[in-house]
Amino acid sequence: MNTTTMNSATDPEPLEGQTNTTVDASLYPKGSLDILSREEVARLRDASAGGMHDLLRKCALAVLTSGSASDDPHLASRKYADFDIQVQQQDRGVRIELKNAPAMAFVDGHIIRGVADLLFAVVRDIAWTAMEMGPEDAQQLENSADITDAVFRLLRHARMLRHGDPNLVVCWGGHSISREEYLYTKEVGYELGLRGLDICTGCGPGAMKGPMKGATIAHAKQRRTNPRYIGITEPGIIAAESPNPIVNNLVIMPDIEKRLEAFVRVAHGIIVFPGGAGTAEEILYLLGVLLREENAGLPYPMILTGPKDSAAYFEEIDRFIRLTLGEDATKHYRIIVDDPEDVARTMIAGIRKVREYRIEHRDSFYFNWSLDIPLDLQRPFDPTHEAMAALDLHHGRRPQDLAADLRRAFSGIVAGNVKEAGVRRIHERGPFEIHGDADIMAALDDMLRSFVEQRRMKISGEYNPCYRVIR
Amino acid sequence: MNTTTMNSATDPEPLEGQTNTTVDASLYPKGSLDILSREEVARLRDASAGGMHDLLRKCALAVLTSGSASDDPHLASRKYADFDIQVQQQDRGVRIELKNAPAMAFVDGHIIRGVADLLFAVVRDIAWTAMEMGPEDAQQLENSADITDAVFRLLRHARMLRHGDPNLVVCWGGHSISREEYLYTKEVGYELGLRGLDICTGCGPGAMKGPMKGATIAHAKQRRTNPRYIGITEPGIIAAESPNPIVNNLVIMPDIEKRLEAFVRVAHGIIVFPGGAGTAEEILYLLGVLLREENAGLPYPMILTGPKDSAAYFEEIDRFIRLTLGEDATKHYRIIVDDPEDVARTMIAGIRKVREYRIEHRDSFYFNWSLDIPLDLQRPFDPTHEAMAALDLHHGRRPQDLAADLRRAFSGIVAGNVKEAGVRRIHERGPFEIHGDADIMAALDDMLRSFVEQRRMKISGEYNPCYRVIR
Amino acid sequence: MNTTTMNSATDPEPLEGQTNTTVDASLYPKGSLDILSREEVARLRDASAGGMHDLLRKCALAVLTSGSASDDPHLASRKYADFDIQVQQQDRGVRIELKNAPAMAFVDGHIIRGVADLLFAVVRDIAWTAMEMGPEDAQQLENSADITDAVFRLLRHARMLRHGDPNLVVCWGGHSISREEYLYTKEVGYELGLRGLDICTGCGPGAMKGPMKGATIAHAKQRRTNPRYIGITEPGIIAAESPNPIVNNLVIMPDIEKRLEAFVRVAHGIIVFPGGAGTAEEILYLLGVLLREENAGLPYPMILTGPKDSAAYFEEIDRFIRLTLGEDATKHYRIIVDDPEDVARTMIAGIRKVREYRIEHRDSFYFNWSLDIPLDLQRPFDPTHEAMAALDLHHGRRPQDLAADLRRAFSGIVAGNVKEAGVRRIHERGPFEIHGDADIMAALDDMLRSFVEQRRMKISGEYNPCYRVIR
Amino acid sequence: MNTTTMNSATDPEPLEGQTNTTVDASLYPKGSLDILSREEVARLRDASAGGMHDLLRKCALAVLTSGSASDDPHLASRKYADFDIQVQQQDRGVRIELKNAPAMAFVDGHIIRGVADLLFAVVRDIAWTAMEMGPEDAQQLENSADITDAVFRLLRHARMLRHGDPNLVVCWGGHSISREEYLYTKEVGYELGLRGLDICTGCGPGAMKGPMKGATIAHAKQRRTNPRYIGITEPGIIAAESPNPIVNNLVIMPDIEKRLEAFVRVAHGIIVFPGGAGTAEEILYLLGVLLREENAGLPYPMILTGPKDSAAYFEEIDRFIRLTLGEDATKHYRIIVDDPEDVARTMIAGIRKVREYRIEHRDSFYFNWSLDIPLDLQRPFDPTHEAMAALDLHHGRRPQDLAADLRRAFSGIVAGNVKEAGVRRIHERGPFEIHGDADIMAALDDMLRSFVEQRRMKISGEYNPCYRVIR
Repeated sequence: MNTTTMNSATDPEPLEGQTNTTVDASLYPKGSLDILSREEVARLRDASAGGMHDLLRKCALAVLTSGSASDDPHLASRKYADFDIQVQQQDRGVRIELKNAPAMAFVDGHIIRGVADLLFAVVRDIAWTAMEMGPEDAQQLENSADITDAVFRLLRHARMLRHGDPNLVVCWGGHSISREEYLYTKEVGYELGLRGLDICTGCGPGAMKGPMKGATIAHAKQRRTNPRYIGITEPGIIAAESPNPIVNNLVIMPDIEKRLEAFVRVAHGIIVFPGGAGTAEEILYLLGVLLREENAGLPYPMILTGPKDSAAYFEEIDRFIRLTLGEDATKHYRIIVDDPEDVARTMIAGIRKVREYRIEHRDSFYFNWSLDIPLDLQRPFDPTHEAMAALDLHHGRRPQDLAADLRRAFSGIVAGNVKEAGVRRIHERGPFEIHGDADIMAALDDMLRSFVEQRRMKISGEYNPCYRVIR
Repeated sequence: MNTTTMNSATDPEPLEGQTNTTVDASLYPKGSLDILSREEVARLRDASAGGMHDLLRKCALAVLTSGSASDDPHLASRKYADFDIQVQQQDRGVRIELKNAPAMAFVDGHIIRGVADLLFAVVRDIAWTAMEMGPEDAQQLENSADITDAVFRLLRHARMLRHGDPNLVVCWGGHSISREEYLYTKEVGYELGLRGLDICTGCGPGAMKGPMKGATIAHAKQRRTNPRYIGITEPGIIAAESPNPIVNNLVIMPDIEKRLEAFVRVAHGIIVFPGGAGTAEEILYLLGVLLREENAGLPYPMILTGPKDSAAYFEEIDRFIRLTLGEDATKHYRIIVDDPEDVARTMIAGIRKVREYRIEHRDSFYFNWSLDIPLDLQRPFDPTHEAMAALDLHHGRRPQDLAADLRRAFSGIVAGNVKEAGVRRIHERGPFEIHGDADIMAALDDMLRSFVEQRRMKISGEYNPCYRVIR
Repeated sequence: MNTTTMNSATDPEPLEGQTNTTVDASLYPKGSLDILSREEVARLRDASAGGMHDLLRKCALAVLTSGSASDDPHLASRKYADFDIQVQQQDRGVRIELKNAPAMAFVDGHIIRGVADLLFAVVRDIAWTAMEMGPEDAQQLENSADITDAVFRLLRHARMLRHGDPNLVVCWGGHSISREEYLYTKEVGYELGLRGLDICTGCGPGAMKGPMKGATIAHAKQRRTNPRYIGITEPGIIAAESPNPIVNNLVIMPDIEKRLEAFVRVAHGIIVFPGGAGTAEEILYLLGVLLREENAGLPYPMILTGPKDSAAYFEEIDRFIRLTLGEDATKHYRIIVDDPEDVARTMIAGIRKVREYRIEHRDSFYFNWSLDIPLDLQRPFDPTHEAMAALDLHHGRRPQDLAADLRRAFSGIVAGNVKEAGVRRIHERGPFEIHGDADIMAALDDMLRSFVEQRRMKISGEYNPCYRVIR
Repeated sequence: MNTTTMNSATDPEPLEGQTNTTVDASLYPKGSLDILSREEVARLRDASAGGMHDLLRKCALAVLTSGSASDDPHLASRKYADFDIQVQQQDRGVRIELKNAPAMAFVDGHIIRGVADLLFAVVRDIAWTAMEMGPEDAQQLENSADITDAVFRLLRHARMLRHGDPNLVVCWGGHSISREEYLYTKEVGYELGLRGLDICTGCGPGAMKGPMKGATIAHAKQRRTNPRYIGITEPGIIAAESPNPIVNNLVIMPDIEKRLEAFVRVAHGIIVFPGGAGTAEEILYLLGVLLREENAGLPYPMILTGPKDSAAYFEEIDRFIRLTLGEDATKHYRIIVDDPEDVARTMIAGIRKVREYRIEHRDSFYFNWSLDIPLDLQRPFDPTHEAMAALDLHHGRRPQDLAADLRRAFSGIVAGNVKEAGVRRIHERGPFEIHGDADIMAALDDMLRSFVEQRRMKISGEYNPCYRVIR
């Protein structure tokens, strides 16, 4: 049914000596886009042609080049500058038109089915939820329950909420990790898979791909049918961290905070591998949630793990948490060094408790309604100079509040270092000014420097902190 | 998971010497009600407890007594006067609480699964669509495309729209038919089923049950997995014509006109068995649609059929159509007397053309978007004296317009004869006055009298026409 | 793939005014006949063309006319005198050629799939097992374990042995029962089906069809997928009692005794409805087994049941058993009058014990290996005058031995009354002489007379006992 | 149901510092071993305890250590010297008892399901077919059709013969190949998998594992359900080339020749990667078959392929074939260098022709009955000095006959170099004497030397040819 035309002539100068044939294709989606009303199709077409079009195009390109050797999103943009995607209406449903699409997504003129699935997920989540929950709406959600509801509906629409025993492990960690660390994430994924656990990550390479690869082999050995490899991403990340081809269930959440909420509400347990500032941000987000009195007694397995040589990394994280959030905070996680089997067995034991708790409290298995997340952590944080100056990193605050502000600090620092808008702000107005106690600020500083040294953060040139400490 | 309590003690005086044990039960829905947000559950609970509660209770009772010998809805109401249904909220979803429910729906304390499915459909369509599309909304839909869209969304929500080759035959006809006619409908259903066709009717007994029973046997012989027995009903009918237990896909449309639109948009062909004024109304509705120039060339198999002794019935219908809508109208249907195999073969041939047309015009197989239905036929018709007096049954009008007014005339006469509100109006203000040409009115009169004679309409006492002809 | 030719011209004189078109068709089997070696196909072809051909033809005709109004096998033989079936070889497998086959088994030139399945079962069991276990072999099996093994292999080859919880109820009873009794068997089947039980009978009408029909409706209501309607027949019966179309798993055992062993080894419980001498034979067979010390403690639910007016029937059976086999024998069954729900609930409770016993004794669920059946009951009994005179129906024998001889007595009397070979023997040599105590013989006599009066045995003309009692 | 005991105490001295815990376990097979008669179980137990026991034990150990880093079968034997396997009888079926089994096959006390499947295949094929077709029988099959029939029945019993469109590609090649060649086999497997093709190899590492790994990834991307990774092995090979864990359908054929026949009869096309003498033997076997006049016109895609650096390898093979079998022989294969996509596309085109041919000639898709294989190639070849001296490697013979003798020559040389029995014979009686034309013998000599140089054959110490050329 799908039709394709090869365009080798349209691409006279392939970059880097690589043949760079492109393809035109018409696709008819299956799944959540296939039974639409005429009106829905029309709105979908309009949404995809309007303000959302650039975003849609960028995300579609990320998916169509998934699995390519290069991680550089700019390269793909340059190579496929003529690429375009249109959502067309037909009485019988939606037709997706690709122009000058990367040939690597096709086999003998037919799109690879898994790539098509991811592409349909992109259209569904970008254009469709854009129209159901416009960017304005996304911003305007001002009520904690409403935001949770929006997260729930986006996940349900992506068919991510299913019945079945708790078995979903979210894996966090860096996209830029050492070979040794990468192999370790595969081994952990393998041990999880052997025990029937499914994997959810943020898409992309490194610690987000390894566990899925390991689990794939284990699931095959255990003859597990319908294993789930879930990717939860957001528009700002997908182009740089394109979904690896193993992902068979993808959702694009509207912003970082909803993505974080999606992670912690679908997870039955979380494993953290070594990573950079982004990983630190995720750890602080989760601790900010778990430290709340409202969540006291709620079982939530959280394991920090890495190979032997990464032990120092977790010691540093652990020290920083003790210093800032106090001894009590360390009860919420366990550090396991170089023992994938122990990680998997500990996770299985933890998930057993989650299961009992959910049954006892009549909470669903597929969405953690009981977990209390404050509006404070749900609201998108825009790291302006003002917002950064408003952070309050002093001892004496409630740990959950301090955790929330620390999370924002990391978020802002990442932006100031590497994100386009953040770098520009620093350039224009100088470094952020952050208020905090000396020891906290020093620890934060140390940690960031070591991330840079360990090449966990991509800094071009010498590392110049983008912030100043004000005490 | 579902829990039940037997209440034999609560029912000290069973009617008619029958043991009348009732049951209390908690049910946890599967299917379209099982993954809801907290907010949706709350709104569902509120809707079911509010103004919709009586309707919900009545429809639920119809489903729980489905298959009982008696057709009399009042009897069920009296027998199960204490029956109640509540939709309760739990974090993990919806719980349906039944109090004093008919024991006949249970086996050893477990609800029969098919009955539970129908009950969940009732809750879904009554409470849920009440909340998505309140009664006000239902009234206010003033745009043809919007109404079609609402019909589409209701059917999709009921999971009635599925991919697959065209094979759905809608069967219309009376609930009060002779034994010979009933057996004939079974035979037709059997021949349809042997050829892989699925059945959709209006639920209830007679011509709405026979084809499903016949098809069930044929599907079993052909080892057909997942056959579909679709029931499309509406709140005013379900209590009197409770879904027969074969129905495995039920939807409750908000009103008669949306039910009619649902029928003609999901059908790939329609078979009309003998019936009363309601069946005449359905025939006129369909002809009112097919006679429009907008639908010229659209293939739509329509077969009128019955056993040998019913031949006179269809001759009368045929004469009436020629007289009122003209010779051309007869091109749209074929009358087949006493030949179930011919009916099935003719339907197969007709559906083949429907399939080709849909492919050529890129219309979906599961919903007939191409069919043009004017707002005039979509708008609910309330048969007041004024509305009836406004009908214009004269020669010289466009056939499709005359068909639409004739449909309303039948609708009003049925109401004036048997529906509570209609009978009261006639009692208060005397017979309706209908304007029309003498020959048309005489033919209408003759047809109605013969329906009464043939016991196709339930009239208690002598038949007094509820209308007067004004020329 | 299957090809067909209509032969209306070949049948110039349809009997009884009925159109009697026949069909030529080539069928390519699926299932157990579809992956054969070249050698197997050749042997199958030879077996079907040789001495087995008449039997194959007769059984195939029974299946192809299954569901016809008439029960008279001679009528079918006369109507389709030209019918023939050939098994042909092709490299890729088997082709079954039908010549002048009854058109009633076809729809628009395609054979009804369920009929095809039964036809393939006939070919498989007649031709195939004829070649694996020739008639000689069948006779020569002289060892109890070997016979059981043969029964097992025949059932396995028919794909009748499957994993799954015990839920198979064998229903015995007459093919010639009253309307009231027939409706009762349907109700019992319905109650069994509501509780998830599957049905096995001997094929044919009456008590062998009713439970399957009732269960079919109940299974549909309970949305039970893959219900099993098992028929166990043998070549001497299938033509007279052709498999009803509900049967979806058919096996043709080589003789009466292997059929009886198949019944009692696959059953998880047995229900006996009213019947004639054949049913009495079955009851005595089962009691002959259950009364053995080797089977002490083995749970085996056996329920005798019928509607209110059949109560006298079971009282008579019960009296006869007490008189002949003693009070203890009555512990093995329960009589339930006019209470289908009680029958089903009692059976469920009994099967629960069977399940526990099988687990405890590590016996399989799908075949009752633990049940001890003596060679005496396994060996085919040929009712010659000598064999009948050798029976020993006196008090004082071990109950199981007396039961075995009583079974043979019934078997011989049935043959002397109605089977071709038996009637001829009586004609030539006069009545059988049976040795037994006066009271036993009188009771047997009474019982047979009442069967005749109740029209449970088809006797043409006046009833003349085919035996004389010798004391 | 399966039970396990950990035996860490029983293993006081793990080799090589590795923890070497062993496990005792009872397994209850599923699949082809699960519905057996009591007699079959008894025979199975006896067969597994008798002469077959050592073979069974060795093969089971190969499967239980599958996926381990080491390829050395002796190492596994030494490490698990206490390992034992028993097949036990229970009324309900078979129980497999493992003593001191490698812990690596278990996860938290449960055997990995895929490993269990392979283990059941071993029991089925070793013990079961040993008893159905004793080693004596295997030797005595003296008729070509009977041997083919035996091959067919073994494959059917292993559930390897299934309906479905032709899509099975057999991949041959060495277990000891370069990294570059291994990656190339993965790429070819990937391209085959993208196009919906399934893979069959001889089990083991190298070219037998790479294509399966590549196809696994491609099948996942194409969302292919139920992909098949078939392994065909034989008792002499399995211990050295244990099935890689991807294999999900394993059969152990009784000898090399039946294994070769199984390959060429199930294949819809064959791809040959670089390898050693064994691979040369396989190429000559296939050419010996395809060159027969009886197989003229039979489409049989055969592709020789490798990465760029392996081009010389295939040139040498090609030259040898031209020299010995003539120019015509080269029509039967195509050499493709360094182009995985071209390999896959060529194979797809070839298989399309196979499909058409099978349909036209009514041959089955799952077994190539049409292919003529002479008894000469089916009979096991035992490389004694006499047998080797009887080979006739001169020009002028029919190519297919010369191919058959060349195949034997390679087989004997491999044995003389590396197989235990062969090496002993050479030691005792000196080198084989082979009669042949000088140029043929020189070419053969060159080819073997280059295999040794390229490390495709495992020779310890210096290479001393085990044969002498006699002209």
